[in-house]
Amino acid sequence: MNKVFPVPHPAHAPTAAPLDGATITARLKELAAFTDVPGELTRLTLTPAHKRAAAQVSFWMREAGLGQVHMDATGTIVGRYAADRANAKTLLIGSHIDTVRNAGIYDGNLGVLTAIAAVEALKEKGIRLPFAIEVAAFADEEGVRFLSTLSSSRAMAGIFDPRCLEDVDAQGISRMEALRTFGAPADRIADCRRNADDMLGYVEVHIEQGPVLEAAGAPLGIVTGIAGASRGHVRVRGEAGHSGTLPMAMRHDALAAAAEMILAVEARGRANGGDLVATVGTLVIAGSAVNVVPGEVQFSLDVRTLSDDLRARAIADIRTAVDEIAARRGVRAGLDIGHEVPAAPCAGVLKERMAQVVGDLGLPVVRLPSGAGHDAMVFRGVMPMAMLFVRSQNGSHNPREYAAPADIGLAAEALHAFLMKTAQEM
Amino acid sequence: MNKVFPVPHPAHAPTAAPLDGATITARLKELAAFTDVPGELTRLTLTPAHKRAAAQVSFWMREAGLGQVHMDATGTIVGRYAADRANAKTLLIGSHIDTVRNAGIYDGNLGVLTAIAAVEALKEKGIRLPFAIEVAAFADEEGVRFLSTLSSSRAMAGIFDPRCLEDVDAQGISRMEALRTFGAPADRIADCRRNADDMLGYVEVHIEQGPVLEAAGAPLGIVTGIAGASRGHVRVRGEAGHSGTLPMAMRHDALAAAAEMILAVEARGRANGGDLVATVGTLVIAGSAVNVVPGEVQFSLDVRTLSDDLRARAIADIRTAVDEIAARRGVRAGLDIGHEVPAAPCAGVLKERMAQVVGDLGLPVVRLPSGAGHDAMVFRGVMPMAMLFVRSQNGSHNPREYAAPADIGLAAEALHAFLMKTAQEM
Repeated sequence: MNKVFPVPHPAHAPTAAPLDGATITARLKELAAFTDVPGELTRLTLTPAHKRAAAQVSFWMREAGLGQVHMDATGTIVGRYAADRANAKTLLIGSHIDTVRNAGIYDGNLGVLTAIAAVEALKEKGIRLPFAIEVAAFADEEGVRFLSTLSSSRAMAGIFDPRCLEDVDAQGISRMEALRTFGAPADRIADCRRNADDMLGYVEVHIEQGPVLEAAGAPLGIVTGIAGASRGHVRVRGEAGHSGTLPMAMRHDALAAAAEMILAVEARGRANGGDLVATVGTLVIAGSAVNVVPGEVQFSLDVRTLSDDLRARAIADIRTAVDEIAARRGVRAGLDIGHEVPAAPCAGVLKERMAQVVGDLGLPVVRLPSGAGHDAMVFRGVMPMAMLFVRSQNGSHNPREYAAPADIGLAAEALHAFLMKTAQEM
Repeated sequence: MNKVFPVPHPAHAPTAAPLDGATITARLKELAAFTDVPGELTRLTLTPAHKRAAAQVSFWMREAGLGQVHMDATGTIVGRYAADRANAKTLLIGSHIDTVRNAGIYDGNLGVLTAIAAVEALKEKGIRLPFAIEVAAFADEEGVRFLSTLSSSRAMAGIFDPRCLEDVDAQGISRMEALRTFGAPADRIADCRRNADDMLGYVEVHIEQGPVLEAAGAPLGIVTGIAGASRGHVRVRGEAGHSGTLPMAMRHDALAAAAEMILAVEARGRANGGDLVATVGTLVIAGSAVNVVPGEVQFSLDVRTLSDDLRARAIADIRTAVDEIAARRGVRAGLDIGHEVPAAPCAGVLKERMAQVVGDLGLPVVRLPSGAGHDAMVFRGVMPMAMLFVRSQNGSHNPREYAAPADIGLAAEALHAFLMKTAQEM
């Protein structure tokens, strides 16, 4: 399945220090030049910019000593660093190279480039390990172009949903058509599936996309798992009225009721004291006007935690609060949960090994859940999975997202050390 | 200034009972046929439908014995019922015949038709009073077509703002052009002004547009005054973040802060226990998404009460609450008041006379403020003013607004009795 790619971007000067954060940062900036919208980084899945970025990543993979570099049926670029023996198991390291619109340069791309760097350091030292390493640059994580997402990592995990091939983008192009234009052998999805018995597990490096490591003063973080999530909405129906003519005592104000519910959601989120987060992100008043008492309001709910049980209890508590507030205020309201994803805990052995290499680097060992979804989550129940977070600033999904070169270098060193330690412990 | 109007709608059958609610309701339905949007009642100021409605009203005025029927410089139709003597003072009775989009048939029109009916009953009895009566069908109350409003009653009160002639509608037509097309002698605005020394006062009948009379089981209500109003907005700036990655304890959620402020507004409204109403009618989250902790929220504030002092204290209390909530939550927020209108109390003598005639009809005497604005408010400080409310259902400004024919008949009888009583007391 090796494919011939167009002539790649000129190679960066070979370095004696592939794990150096400055080197990786320079590559991140090079990669950010592949955009569909000049002047910003917008590289939605399976676009021409994505194809050029994939070619560049393939080139770097080969330079790093990865072989059998190819594009799989979902548009993912995969390279393989062979083991020191036959019939060895494989460790998969990945992240994605598609982006949101007007993205930062670190989200996804950082994980692919640190994986390449960790392998390149093996090659430069002339080391083969008792297991093979595959590096995957996934094609579809952000879910901006098509309705469905994570299709490329799902294919590797063996849980690809073929209906996603029929999803269409805003121009009416289906994922199937986009894959063919991209040059992916879309009729061979089944070949993507990894046999769990052959795999050591899946590892992913990613920027944190949150403020926890920055607040803790820790460059790296051990991910405890990827939070499960419940999403839904609350619709509140009161009675609209004229703001001047409807006395306060006769009102059934849908917005005031919603305000009380929003504070109940926040209070339930805070009550846990742990990793639970509960968010109202959208709110719309039907037919709103300055001089109209709101008659109908709809707002969203997003609840996440690593504990599926805690999440279920939080949803139940919020439902009770919504019902109680509605009854007391004489409005109708109900919570509808439209979308639920179970938590994906990181595997104990991989996670503790990651903690050990981070500690060995002399860094604080901070453990934190991932509240955001990642390719790693699809391997839940399929193979052991671990993630390493890199301290980042200014959130993510915006051009201001930032990870310091020094922190990026530490992440590459930790990942490289993780590979060495995995070999030692076999 | 008498104008020749196009041939009017065929007259309804003359009745021996001009004060009969069924008669007036039939005229309301006839008038509702003059619409710019077939299938609904939409009669914005100075449109072709307004002109046809004005012609019909002029016809009914003449039938009722009103003379000197003419269109004034602002498009208002005015008719005069002469006094029984020379140099008599004048009582002005009015309301408006412009409507909102997809309006009900009662708002405004009811006041004009009850005024005509009250005069028609004088004519049928062959009665002249020791004062003249002018009936005004104002052209511009709803403020839907142009930015400014109440221009026609303001011209009579002598507080017309000439800048409103430059206001343009959505098609770019100025009020000045619209007046000329309508046939109004727009260069003679100054002639509209009534000399306060010649006037007994201004009286207006209007549907309540609220639920107070219905709840009290009272067909009519004595208006204590038209509430003053403060309008403004609160802008809350917190910090946006990812709903999954931003721990609860690190959040500065602009929506949660706004929710607390909305409840403070409601609590301040309720605290008064009197006529104060405080409303948040609009709320917008900047860049809202289900998975984004809101970073910036703007919501409206509308506070009304008959007491200008109470209104000022309520605004100050809300400002304090907004500031306290913002400081405690680590967000920035401020209340901006963009628009303030002082209260217009009804005149004691006229108001008590109205209460007496309502009581004489054997009806409960319910006193209530008007939370909505009316043409009556522009006469504040110019001449004594009184209003009579008619019980209504389903609010107003929608096709479901309703006043029962029996209640309308009582309103016409009360207004007629008010005229008789005014004569007795002179």
